[in-house]
Amino acid sequence: MKVFGVVMAGGSGTRFWPLSRKFRPKQLLNLTGKDAMINEAVARLKPVAKDGIYIVSSKSQREGLLSVLKGCVPEEHILLEPVARNTAACIGYAAVKILKEEGDGVLVVIPSDSYIKNTEAFMRALSLAAETAEEKDAIVTIGIKPTFPATGYGYIRFEEGEEPVRRVLQFVEKPDLPHAQAYLESGQFVWNSGMFIWKASLILKKIEKYLPELYQYLMRLKDAVGTEREYEVLESVYPEMPSISVDYGVLEKSDGIYVVPADLGWSDVGSLDMLEAVRTTDADGNITVGETYPLDTHHTIIYTGGKPVCTVGVDDLIIVDMPDVLLVCSKEHAQDVKKIVDELRAKGKEELL
Amino acid sequence: MKVFGVVMAGGSGTRFWPLSRKFRPKQLLNLTGKDAMINEAVARLKPVAKDGIYIVSSKSQREGLLSVLKGCVPEEHILLEPVARNTAACIGYAAVKILKEEGDGVLVVIPSDSYIKNTEAFMRALSLAAETAEEKDAIVTIGIKPTFPATGYGYIRFEEGEEPVRRVLQFVEKPDLPHAQAYLESGQFVWNSGMFIWKASLILKKIEKYLPELYQYLMRLKDAVGTEREYEVLESVYPEMPSISVDYGVLEKSDGIYVVPADLGWSDVGSLDMLEAVRTTDADGNITVGETYPLDTHHTIIYTGGKPVCTVGVDDLIIVDMPDVLLVCSKEHAQDVKKIVDELRAKGKEELL
Repeated sequence: MKVFGVVMAGGSGTRFWPLSRKFRPKQLLNLTGKDAMINEAVARLKPVAKDGIYIVSSKSQREGLLSVLKGCVPEEHILLEPVARNTAACIGYAAVKILKEEGDGVLVVIPSDSYIKNTEAFMRALSLAAETAEEKDAIVTIGIKPTFPATGYGYIRFEEGEEPVRRVLQFVEKPDLPHAQAYLESGQFVWNSGMFIWKASLILKKIEKYLPELYQYLMRLKDAVGTEREYEVLESVYPEMPSISVDYGVLEKSDGIYVVPADLGWSDVGSLDMLEAVRTTDADGNITVGETYPLDTHHTIIYTGGKPVCTVGVDDLIIVDMPDVLLVCSKEHAQDVKKIVDELRAKGKEELL
Repeated sequence: MKVFGVVMAGGSGTRFWPLSRKFRPKQLLNLTGKDAMINEAVARLKPVAKDGIYIVSSKSQREGLLSVLKGCVPEEHILLEPVARNTAACIGYAAVKILKEEGDGVLVVIPSDSYIKNTEAFMRALSLAAETAEEKDAIVTIGIKPTFPATGYGYIRFEEGEEPVRRVLQFVEKPDLPHAQAYLESGQFVWNSGMFIWKASLILKKIEKYLPELYQYLMRLKDAVGTEREYEVLESVYPEMPSISVDYGVLEKSDGIYVVPADLGWSDVGSLDMLEAVRTTDADGNITVGETYPLDTHHTIIYTGGKPVCTVGVDDLIIVDMPDVLLVCSKEHAQDVKKIVDELRAKGKEELL
């Protein structure tokens, strides 16, 4: 059976502001110092998704996306949503497109904005998941072995056993700290990585069952795929689609899901402090990008998009100096950067977003 | 007798970097939001220095100085040192210039970079000091009644009594904290404000006695004042002059000095955190200049020379965003800004200084 990669790249990533912007979302940034996140995601998928890689992004990000991809994914494999409608619609769109143009196959669906250190382990986990998805015609997810009691991720509880692939017992929303600690200690939970491996035909069956309204729109879209009406229908049906996550709309309601627990050196790059996971620190624990002069400065992230940045006697800060705006944030408050974005939007400062 | 004002405006103020620069020293900045420090100093002196005000600055600051002064001091009263040679040379130069061109008179010598809140008290103190300097032909200083046990200022110990003018018993260098506390509690010490009131002729007598080498150079300069050789002699003798402060070179060695203790709401604006003394804080204790978006931000000074500055979850910082360089500094380390200036100089970044 064929295996396709689907990279979900529609996010805007306001918690990464001001590095990320409306037209330069997180996945287009070169956060590791090596390559843009989306290019790294595509490169990681290639050995597994031997029959081709699709990217689902948004119409507004087209230009930025093309300039970053530099042709490493053919333009006809780039699906552009007219508006964002969450992951169920995104995956459904990819499924009808691939099913109609390429026939059925296993879709390895991954987010574009995760960082994965252990590439080998990632390939092994995906290969195993793709085999399982084909053999059992089941939904398979990748679960990340937790390394700390994270309260910012969803968890997946799996059946005890020795096999490398386990039955999923339960999806759990982001827990509080005591629960997260219990999950970590039990050894029976993994983090939900947002990676799903299933056949295009199964995706549509599941959506038909659990999200029938979305299914109707997807069928209208499927009819138009490959015809000269495709763009017009996409533009007209997409805004009508319900906006719901595939986790909540399909997975939490389904039975017979499998998970491959894996140790990937994974990070979801959810906010600016995650730069620490992907960059090398200096002797004082600082991460600096650009011309910086840190003095008596510790555990601080300094990114400058141009001019020199000098720091004196500061700890645990995130400083992002862009040509048009400056952010100075404590690491503790890295998640609150989206509040600033909200405030700027409320004050009509669209040009900064 | 005539009374002249002499404003010492040669300082470079590296602790105010990056607001202050080589060609835009602290005294030319509008720190209060009202007017440049030097203009405020001139305005405060005018009612007392009824026979004219002189400014001593450096040749390299001429252009900036003239553009800030906007003619409020005549150009022939602006004395430009070819190189900086500390306060003894600076005051000596003013003395020979005034003595030769205007005749003897009381010189009210003040620094250009002090902030004084209580203008009325300042005028009363200066008037009293000028009368005393004339009547007793003595050196008179203004002493600031201490409001906290400062370790960053020199102190003056004075004779007990009830009179508004007291004899100075001792000049004390910057003390450690226990000594500063003892001085504060004793009620017999004031801060050395760096303001001296004495006749031009007395200045030269004292320099002749305690700094004979400097005196020789000043006499060569005096001969040339008012002739077409003036500029040429200035250029040749100034670099040869010994560099010594008037405090150390003259005052600490002299007897019969008087002090007028005064409550001036004084601050020496020694480093960036002093902006707190001259600006109004918001409800969270922040001082902001320019377009700023402080969120969960407290007791922080934010100055932006152009673009918007956003802060999240930070306390007790100083942020100065200039078009060519950014400084982020903890208030606690405000004095260490000069170390960054030293580092930039060592690294050949002259354009940032």
